[in-house]
Amino acid sequence: MTHEKHAYDDYGTHYPNSRKVYVTGSRSDIRVPVREIRLDDTRNADGSIEENPPLMIYDTCGPMTDPDHEIDLEKGLPAIRSAWIAERNDVEEHASGVDILSNPDKAYHGLQRKPLRAKDEKSVTQLTYARQGIITPEMEFVAIREKVALEFVRDEIAAGRAVIPLNINHPEAEPMIIGRKFRTKINANIGNSALGSSIEEEVDKMQWAVQWGADTVMDLSTGTDIHDTREWIVRNSPTPIGTVPLYQALKKIDDDADGLSWELYRDTLIEQAEQGIDYFTIHAGVLRKDIPAVKARKLGIVSRGGSIMAKWMIDNNQENFLYTRFPEICEIMRAYDITFSLGDGMRPGCIADANDEAQLSELKTLGELTKIAWEHGCQVMIEGPGHVPLDKIKVNMDLQLQDCFEAPFYTLGPLVTDCAAGYDHINSAIGGAVIGWYGTSMLCYVTPKEHLGLPNRDDVKEGVIVHKIAAHAADLAKGVAGAMDRDEAMRKARGEFRWEDQYNISFDPQRAREYRLASLPPEEHGRTDQHYCSMCGERYCSMRISEDIRQCPAGQGAELES
Amino acid sequence: MTHEKHAYDDYGTHYPNSRKVYVTGSRSDIRVPVREIRLDDTRNADGSIEENPPLMIYDTCGPMTDPDHEIDLEKGLPAIRSAWIAERNDVEEHASGVDILSNPDKAYHGLQRKPLRAKDEKSVTQLTYARQGIITPEMEFVAIREKVALEFVRDEIAAGRAVIPLNINHPEAEPMIIGRKFRTKINANIGNSALGSSIEEEVDKMQWAVQWGADTVMDLSTGTDIHDTREWIVRNSPTPIGTVPLYQALKKIDDDADGLSWELYRDTLIEQAEQGIDYFTIHAGVLRKDIPAVKARKLGIVSRGGSIMAKWMIDNNQENFLYTRFPEICEIMRAYDITFSLGDGMRPGCIADANDEAQLSELKTLGELTKIAWEHGCQVMIEGPGHVPLDKIKVNMDLQLQDCFEAPFYTLGPLVTDCAAGYDHINSAIGGAVIGWYGTSMLCYVTPKEHLGLPNRDDVKEGVIVHKIAAHAADLAKGVAGAMDRDEAMRKARGEFRWEDQYNISFDPQRAREYRLASLPPEEHGRTDQHYCSMCGERYCSMRISEDIRQCPAGQGAELES
Repeated sequence: MTHEKHAYDDYGTHYPNSRKVYVTGSRSDIRVPVREIRLDDTRNADGSIEENPPLMIYDTCGPMTDPDHEIDLEKGLPAIRSAWIAERNDVEEHASGVDILSNPDKAYHGLQRKPLRAKDEKSVTQLTYARQGIITPEMEFVAIREKVALEFVRDEIAAGRAVIPLNINHPEAEPMIIGRKFRTKINANIGNSALGSSIEEEVDKMQWAVQWGADTVMDLSTGTDIHDTREWIVRNSPTPIGTVPLYQALKKIDDDADGLSWELYRDTLIEQAEQGIDYFTIHAGVLRKDIPAVKARKLGIVSRGGSIMAKWMIDNNQENFLYTRFPEICEIMRAYDITFSLGDGMRPGCIADANDEAQLSELKTLGELTKIAWEHGCQVMIEGPGHVPLDKIKVNMDLQLQDCFEAPFYTLGPLVTDCAAGYDHINSAIGGAVIGWYGTSMLCYVTPKEHLGLPNRDDVKEGVIVHKIAAHAADLAKGVAGAMDRDEAMRKARGEFRWEDQYNISFDPQRAREYRLASLPPEEHGRTDQHYCSMCGERYCSMRISEDIRQCPAGQGAELES
Repeated sequence: MTHEKHAYDDYGTHYPNSRKVYVTGSRSDIRVPVREIRLDDTRNADGSIEENPPLMIYDTCGPMTDPDHEIDLEKGLPAIRSAWIAERNDVEEHASGVDILSNPDKAYHGLQRKPLRAKDEKSVTQLTYARQGIITPEMEFVAIREKVALEFVRDEIAAGRAVIPLNINHPEAEPMIIGRKFRTKINANIGNSALGSSIEEEVDKMQWAVQWGADTVMDLSTGTDIHDTREWIVRNSPTPIGTVPLYQALKKIDDDADGLSWELYRDTLIEQAEQGIDYFTIHAGVLRKDIPAVKARKLGIVSRGGSIMAKWMIDNNQENFLYTRFPEICEIMRAYDITFSLGDGMRPGCIADANDEAQLSELKTLGELTKIAWEHGCQVMIEGPGHVPLDKIKVNMDLQLQDCFEAPFYTLGPLVTDCAAGYDHINSAIGGAVIGWYGTSMLCYVTPKEHLGLPNRDDVKEGVIVHKIAAHAADLAKGVAGAMDRDEAMRKARGEFRWEDQYNISFDPQRAREYRLASLPPEEHGRTDQHYCSMCGERYCSMRISEDIRQCPAGQGAELES
């Protein structure tokens, strides 16, 4: 580690007293980022001072918070994985054949390399390597990041219980793993809409989400300049990027679903594959046989992709082409190591539809597709609901594990009531914490604007942070490696009235500080030594009394025992 | 019901399209308040119109939202229970013997009646009546409010599984029940501190909390004019009021715990009993034998009352007088029907201390005390933690039911991580929803300022609403009578794009409306007929497509089945 290099201000005012360190692996180009939070010393009652070791936090921020990295959005992030990919000698450069409809004014010119693709229909997926017993640099990276053994990572991937979503054309991304025996991850959705926002705004939203702790980001753009917006995002994103390719496919035909075809969709997959998208949401489980069950529901289909495919099947009187063409899709995914995120087109949109026939029938189909994808060597995640009351979450999770053979579950919420408009991020955090504890591997964030409108910057931050809390609560309950470190540091800081440390250990130091200062008289704002808080006041501070009790003579303690 | 009396504006801008109605019981003075939300008509695709019945919501607001009630804080609320209490012929007027240290400038002069007390050491508790097979007007009131049978209410109370916290000196309160087979309740804490806030501010905070849905309010004042502040609050509160009498007892001796004595405490109990406090938090389970277990903890005692009693035991080398004098306390409680809220002085203050020896030993003591209180005819609730990770909540709940013989559990949170400073209301909502589902009867709210400072008006609202959501999620999971009505109404309004109804059915209509309008172009703000939202846009609205699917000919549906 290069602990001594920087002052503790790499993360600026959002994370005070933090600096970027890297843990180096078996080779010098495996450098795993960690955020190191400097903690104040403990000042004992007897005047002695004890140093507290710094707290090491899983870091999603990427090189943007590394002072040695020069930020240049036009150049993009360094391609840290290029050598690893090249060394495997199983990919080749490939001249893109897809017309990308680029807007010359907004096109991204930073990429100097050509897209890569697997040679000779080889499988270049982490799943294939893991099955061959290979521990790739990517696997080593995540093993260090998660504080687990190399072999454990490899075996979880080989079994399909975890994925490393990393397209060979996104060498800028820092490897991360999604699986229920690892730290619970969260995803943030961004993306422009027909109303339009600039490329700069979308790149900024991605960075903003990642800074607050998003482990992956989905670009759900449906507005203009989709290709170029995505290119800028991918080149500058340290986390995997996911998309729903159907959205762009529709956009190419001016949102007229009549023109939707396999060929159009396939070309869109390849276009995005060459850009480096790491996982695709594909609604291949929405089948004609389930349409009657949809009609029986209280709230029909609430998944946009699911409803479009259902409509297409009815209008064309054909089976979902994402299902019939699934083996061909697998071949594309495998050639770039794009991870499937099998979409839950039938997710329940209200409490009354939770765990209904449409949902559970689709779940079985997703299990079948998982097997096919695995046979092709592809990595797979399964998307999950939706609106589910607390008492039905466990069954849903257990069925997912069973029907989808333990492929990682990636859920939206679930929301545990339909009535929390304006507070659905909290609604989702409740369901998310519970399903995370039961075994979901990644939570898709929900923002306060859910059901009402598109999130702004504040909503993105709020959504990310509440889901970080939910994911952390799940990790504590599951006993994930290292999860208790943060709570232990907070416990100790709280007991010792190290206020600055309490702010800095929390998920949003600025807010914690601001809230406390709002309760203090202005003359105390500069002090950090108050051994009480405004709740009990100085005289009857339970923490101080507890300390007095702890200090009371052993003899007295013994007497009390009698 | 008096449905037709008012326009739908009784609740003002906070709850648009709502009016106050009363359901009358077997006698005309049993009038149970309900908030009736008027819903828009359904406009079918074929042009036909269907009326939607109004949604009836449990109403905590009290007469303040009744246009027939003239608000006059100096007069207080009408004493709706006075006749019921008098008719039982088991209480008598009593000249207060307690020096209340009143500030003449702030004293409350509205009360024209003298305090009541049980005659001849009779038990005047709802528990005693229930055991005698009597269904009191209070029981009938809550049966109507909860939509359950009269006998069910009586039997749950008789078994100690539910309480109706109603002091005979608080006849202004509307009866409510706390028990795990009923709607999950929430409590909001208010109270001035040494920094001081006016009586008007505290009364306003109580009304504010109750308006957003607090089922009970605890006055935790520790500042000046405690007696008078409380008097104004009680006289104007439609919900039960709880306190921690120890706080005022300490205040009377200038916070010098050396002067703390049984006599001082007893006089404080009686003073508050005569004012009409409905439940008392009493830390009688903190015993000398548990002090060594406290010393072994990571974070000692975090309960203010618990730490004070522990310190008192050590300093005085005596057992907790709240424990040794417990039978005498029961006699006081019984004479006014004050409900015990047995304090969890040993609640864990950090994840690491959850379900530890100190906590679980105290829980057993609280069970013993429950039995004693029940023998005296007193109603009992048990207070619970605290900081507990998700995987330890179930055990905690199960042990509480077992050790405390199913007396209602009343929990603070639990908080499922230590690290959520600034977001602890959400942290608490996660744990609260889960423990509510498992069987907790009332959740004490936590505000965003928890661990940092005292809540302001916005924090109180935020705390109440997120815990309402948690409690509602618990009720859906438990299948509490009527809980699904609200979600069903929301589901239907959502599917039919009745935007005004969606706002009004949610817990904070103003916020929901504001969030949606922020996403709409200004020219659409006046419209309420958009059959899409800004998330999918008009063209690919999944709801509209679902409706198309539902409308597709049966023949086509049949064909699809094949």
